[in-house]
Amino acid sequence: MTPRAGIVVTGTEVLTGRVTDRNGPWLAERLKELGVDVAYTTIVGDRPGDMEAAFRFMAKEGLDLILTSGGLGPTADDLTAEVVGRFQARPMVLDEALEGRIAEILSPLTKRWPNLDMDAIRESNRKQAVVPQGAIVLEPIGTAPGLVVPPSEPESKPTVVVLPGPPRELQPMWSEAVETDALKAAIKDATEYRQTMLRLYGIPESEIAETLRAAEREGLELNRLEITTCLKRGEVEVVTRYEPAEQEVYDAFEAVVRERHSNTLFSDDGSTVDQQVAALLRGSSVDQTQTIATAESCTGGLLAARLTELPGSSDYVRGAAIVYSNEAKITQAGVKAETIEQHGAVSAEVAEALAAGARAKLGADVGVGVTGIAGPGGGTEEKPVGLVWLSVATADGEPLTRSVNLPGSRADIRDRATTVAMHLIRRALLHS
Amino acid sequence: MTPRAGIVVTGTEVLTGRVTDRNGPWLAERLKELGVDVAYTTIVGDRPGDMEAAFRFMAKEGLDLILTSGGLGPTADDLTAEVVGRFQARPMVLDEALEGRIAEILSPLTKRWPNLDMDAIRESNRKQAVVPQGAIVLEPIGTAPGLVVPPSEPESKPTVVVLPGPPRELQPMWSEAVETDALKAAIKDATEYRQTMLRLYGIPESEIAETLRAAEREGLELNRLEITTCLKRGEVEVVTRYEPAEQEVYDAFEAVVRERHSNTLFSDDGSTVDQQVAALLRGSSVDQTQTIATAESCTGGLLAARLTELPGSSDYVRGAAIVYSNEAKITQAGVKAETIEQHGAVSAEVAEALAAGARAKLGADVGVGVTGIAGPGGGTEEKPVGLVWLSVATADGEPLTRSVNLPGSRADIRDRATTVAMHLIRRALLHS
Repeated sequence: MTPRAGIVVTGTEVLTGRVTDRNGPWLAERLKELGVDVAYTTIVGDRPGDMEAAFRFMAKEGLDLILTSGGLGPTADDLTAEVVGRFQARPMVLDEALEGRIAEILSPLTKRWPNLDMDAIRESNRKQAVVPQGAIVLEPIGTAPGLVVPPSEPESKPTVVVLPGPPRELQPMWSEAVETDALKAAIKDATEYRQTMLRLYGIPESEIAETLRAAEREGLELNRLEITTCLKRGEVEVVTRYEPAEQEVYDAFEAVVRERHSNTLFSDDGSTVDQQVAALLRGSSVDQTQTIATAESCTGGLLAARLTELPGSSDYVRGAAIVYSNEAKITQAGVKAETIEQHGAVSAEVAEALAAGARAKLGADVGVGVTGIAGPGGGTEEKPVGLVWLSVATADGEPLTRSVNLPGSRADIRDRATTVAMHLIRRALLHS
Repeated sequence: MTPRAGIVVTGTEVLTGRVTDRNGPWLAERLKELGVDVAYTTIVGDRPGDMEAAFRFMAKEGLDLILTSGGLGPTADDLTAEVVGRFQARPMVLDEALEGRIAEILSPLTKRWPNLDMDAIRESNRKQAVVPQGAIVLEPIGTAPGLVVPPSEPESKPTVVVLPGPPRELQPMWSEAVETDALKAAIKDATEYRQTMLRLYGIPESEIAETLRAAEREGLELNRLEITTCLKRGEVEVVTRYEPAEQEVYDAFEAVVRERHSNTLFSDDGSTVDQQVAALLRGSSVDQTQTIATAESCTGGLLAARLTELPGSSDYVRGAAIVYSNEAKITQAGVKAETIEQHGAVSAEVAEALAAGARAKLGADVGVGVTGIAGPGGGTEEKPVGLVWLSVATADGEPLTRSVNLPGSRADIRDRATTVAMHLIRRALLHS
């Protein structure tokens, strides 16, 4: 039977909505990849009684595995390790070797802040090295160790994996946890699943719903696949999970999607548009690399930030001119004052001038111009909030220019405009 | 006694992490405002057994109130109303008046798409009008009605409030739910709470832990306050929640924090450093406004994007030069080639030249320069990944320049560098 897991996210700041939990969703995806069903994700505050009740509930529901995130810090309200120890009926013991390793991790800190209270540090250091007896220690990435805590009686369940709250500590530590015998034993009955992702851009989600219905009308047994579709940052993601025996059903389904959506399907291998644009800019060899630069108004640097998100992007990103004021558009991106006067700052003409200006001023092969009204103020009947003009200029031929009317808040409009720009760059590079 | 509530968010797409839940955090904030403690937020998939188990758990823990979101749609996997009816031991009955009102909501839809299958529509319409007997119906905003379902035996608990998944339907419907006698009865013992937030920058979280211990040593009864500390984007947030009767204890606690952390406490009114920088740039009147521009290397536009996040930022943000390549640093930000040659692109000298260049090239009052190694490649022993130099130049006097060694991934380093920059800008503006 497919093993079932629960996730317990701790922290009053998460429970009260002040901090958005990123660990629950991330761990849920990882568990799915391993063929483990997630039954519950429960968020609890820093009250040990509530945390323990959540564990008891999950154990009573017969879950094989419980993952916790958070509550491993040095302060007194960080209680997860202790509560898990009690729940698994394992006494807490000081791991002296671990205490030494944490002290080593902390030593650069004490150099940076020479006035720190060393007694306080040593005390919290010791707290973090007190672990349930028999637990497998996962080496600290920050200062907090993680734990894999098996049930105290063999053949019983659940096994509890204790992970720190910061995602950059939790994520590598989870990879370590997966390699432990204790975790492998807890999920030994997991089924192998295959998972694929198709990404489409430029169609409403309802079109995919109609494609699913059409596939079923054609006789495909889609109930043998687990298909989820979701709209994410302006793209439609179709994720399919299936047992290896259903490969043929999946292949037939993918063929239907390909046939009906050949113009909008842009990724079938998990690659993002960001990765595709990076690969297109790099070309097939170093001397084929094309450089890129942006001139942005309403996105205010978000497009440049997105282009430089990938490691090694300095190989092809020259830079950007963020030109919020009209003066900056003129001096930094070479837009003519008349163009702004005649057509307005948000226009096809200014977007094209920005793209050309980005190429010329920054000496890049590809130039991108973005100008729009992110709101909440500044909209008119003719040019409402959400109107964005974008243009991509390459060495050869006409620029690729288009406008969109984006819905949502200021943040939504700015973010969505970067997605539109990435797809426009992709199209320009494919056709240049 | 303070009433306690649980939130049950339903939906496989939320449980698997494909869609981020926005309702749990929103409802948690609203409950807090009403003086209701949230004990748990639990996410469950579309399996009725799992949903019912979550309700039973919350009832067993003695919660007064359960809120659910999602699972009220017209399709077969939308089961929340039925599961809640069974849980509250109330038979499901067709509310004919409600059925009529839903039909009216749907009629424009049927006019717009005349080919819709009317039988299918009528069937799902009827499904949404079948409600637990004795439940209070909350009028639909979309097509799904909400419900307040009291326990079937008087004086028992919990009361369950059933709300739809889309935030734009859930949020107004919650306001309606709050006005019902059934909900008022369920939380009649709610206490008023006060809540404050202190934000500090430039100290490790362990220092705050030590301050809490020190306050207790001085005799403060901190257990009469609910204090949570958390590290967020490089800042420490101390949130305190307390009953009005404990105001004196809180005042004494805040005084201790002020005394021990006068240099690092930068906000006591909930304001963010972004808002403070915006207010400082705006000044006390229009002719006092100072404009700002950045020249960024490793942050690649993230600082400009952050400065332009707030509505109205075009009043003071001139723009930015994103100068990834050395050539761009020279042509776009006026850095001298010799400066880069002599000191390297990541140096105090280049950061200062960038700050001065941003001011000069973009005609701004305040210039900010950022240059660093975001990694994962490009680090050396002398200049490791995570080293970032920042400088802020104003009209008067010396630039404010500093370096930091930031931990974490490329994304962490880039994000954290923007926080360091915001605080450096704040300091420069306060002292100029």
